[in-house]
Amino acid sequence: MDVACYSAPGAGEALEKSTISRRDLRPNDCLIKIRWAGICHSDIHTVNGDWPHDNFPMTPGHEIIGEVTEVGTEVQNFRPGDVVGIGCLVDSCLDCDACREGDENYCESGSTGTYNAPDRLDGTITQGGYSTHIVCREEFLVRIPKAFADLESDAAAAATPLLCAGITTYSPLKHWDVGEGSRVAVVGMGGLGHVAVKLAAAMGADVTVLSHSKSKEADGLAFGASRYVATKEEGWHKPFRASFDLIINTVSAPLDPAPFISTLARGGTMVMLGLPPEKMQISAGALIGKRRSVAGSAIGGIRETQEMIDFCAAHGITAEAEVIPAEEINTAYQRVLDSDVRYRFVIDVNTL
Amino acid sequence: MDVACYSAPGAGEALEKSTISRRDLRPNDCLIKIRWAGICHSDIHTVNGDWPHDNFPMTPGHEIIGEVTEVGTEVQNFRPGDVVGIGCLVDSCLDCDACREGDENYCESGSTGTYNAPDRLDGTITQGGYSTHIVCREEFLVRIPKAFADLESDAAAAATPLLCAGITTYSPLKHWDVGEGSRVAVVGMGGLGHVAVKLAAAMGADVTVLSHSKSKEADGLAFGASRYVATKEEGWHKPFRASFDLIINTVSAPLDPAPFISTLARGGTMVMLGLPPEKMQISAGALIGKRRSVAGSAIGGIRETQEMIDFCAAHGITAEAEVIPAEEINTAYQRVLDSDVRYRFVIDVNTL
Repeated sequence: MDVACYSAPGAGEALEKSTISRRDLRPNDCLIKIRWAGICHSDIHTVNGDWPHDNFPMTPGHEIIGEVTEVGTEVQNFRPGDVVGIGCLVDSCLDCDACREGDENYCESGSTGTYNAPDRLDGTITQGGYSTHIVCREEFLVRIPKAFADLESDAAAAATPLLCAGITTYSPLKHWDVGEGSRVAVVGMGGLGHVAVKLAAAMGADVTVLSHSKSKEADGLAFGASRYVATKEEGWHKPFRASFDLIINTVSAPLDPAPFISTLARGGTMVMLGLPPEKMQISAGALIGKRRSVAGSAIGGIRETQEMIDFCAAHGITAEAEVIPAEEINTAYQRVLDSDVRYRFVIDVNTL
Repeated sequence: MDVACYSAPGAGEALEKSTISRRDLRPNDCLIKIRWAGICHSDIHTVNGDWPHDNFPMTPGHEIIGEVTEVGTEVQNFRPGDVVGIGCLVDSCLDCDACREGDENYCESGSTGTYNAPDRLDGTITQGGYSTHIVCREEFLVRIPKAFADLESDAAAAATPLLCAGITTYSPLKHWDVGEGSRVAVVGMGGLGHVAVKLAAAMGADVTVLSHSKSKEADGLAFGASRYVATKEEGWHKPFRASFDLIINTVSAPLDPAPFISTLARGGTMVMLGLPPEKMQISAGALIGKRRSVAGSAIGGIRETQEMIDFCAAHGITAEAEVIPAEEINTAYQRVLDSDVRYRFVIDVNTL
């Protein structure tokens, strides 16, 4: 079926209203009528050609909440009327060790992105959530818990970014065993960082935000941080020497890792979620002296995404979302680039 | 008391026979008559001034096995005749979180090296194992198990390097949960690396040696490795993409970490034990894609050193040692620098 969308005709071009085709349902597919679609900074990188590719015109969007309207002949777990979410992935082999262990995001043959990726079966390029409908195999759908399931509610809109920003921060917090009393620092308080602060605080951690300036300090403290540190101030790291068990680094701008590593406690880990354009310069001595680690983490698996959104519902956590009509997508992109967003744009897909 | 030693008069100078003073026993001290002392590559760095310091003349040596000959008035656990070992540490605060958890090597106020470090109480500079006797507080002594306790045996001599090379490799193997079926790679098969291969194999791991050339292949396989890879060969890493759960990197020469990181499996860690002179250039993307880590590890704690040497006794593991008389120390240093040692020199301290 042909459905309305916003798509970018070419690299760096403004998105415009258009039409894409959604495939006929395969036996294990669901058709979803999209209600909300989040705007992730990576959408902007992909549209702008910062990560070169040839898949234009392209419809971005990998933070999706909507309603199942039709199911394939073999769908087991969903039926029309169910409220579901889709995050960054719509397929993987489901057969390798990673997939069997619930790490579809690390599928050994490569998982399929929600947009800008070849479908595993027919090779067509996937198209994302800035559209009225999407077709997705049921194994990659997340059930939206009651707290967020009224599709007309603000809560549903604000929960939408959790499908990317939530799982991307929840997964490392869980993997590195954050719990009561953990000392967690979050570097950068943007789309990912502000959710990381809320999640870590809800897990019982003592949370410190390490942000360029203090402009968002009041927000950070309201989200659950115990303190807010401006890293533009010379020597900011000195009072925090060997203080943190885990640093969640959401910043992809090039930052000297040395002062951050100095704040890791014995056995501490700094996890990179962002992709700095250049290689990090890391002193082995700074790691050796306290058995520190520098690691990376990418999104999370589907079971873990379900766990994350259930955790958020139980703790009343959503992203901070500014809802926009579809016609403001290009303005919103510019505002993200200008850091003029607190903290995530969500498209009202009914306006599309 | 004054005791015979070999010491370096100044940076880069040959070691010569000399005399040092050992302190009178404090209540918790033991006097140990040294029988064997290993030569560690770090001794050579310290003597040569590669890590600048002003503590000359200096007696190196932090791999020591000998016999207790006298104990202080409050010593609880040792008595004359006991065969004991001393590794890289002779003191720490024993009061911080790290010490209380058995990580004296990561003592928050800094542990005291066996040589070239100020004594915590009187500030005199510690002097190491290339001497006939040493005084050490009992908390930093390790009990040498029966298999190595005949001081005149080859086994005792060959067990001596375990006090540094053994614990430095055992600690990360345990910390990163190596066991039956773990896929472990050891980078570099020198003093540390050859012990790492034996330990990992004894723990049940499938061990791969990643060495510059294949010159030591037969040894590596005899030590328990399943395969031996020459990293000087272009593209050596390609068949090993995402293969290893843990890489123990013993090489301090500057190596591009990228091909090594590419061989880490999902969730795998490369642990640096050596100190490359320059910062490592690490791509965050290579970490993120498979939730990989790069970490560092320094020696190990005292309880863990005891556990390590008991494990080695139970599994018949020693270092490969070439015993030399004291007068050959300077020749041995040159041979270490020329990579002409398989795999560790041990000084027969009776020749001193």
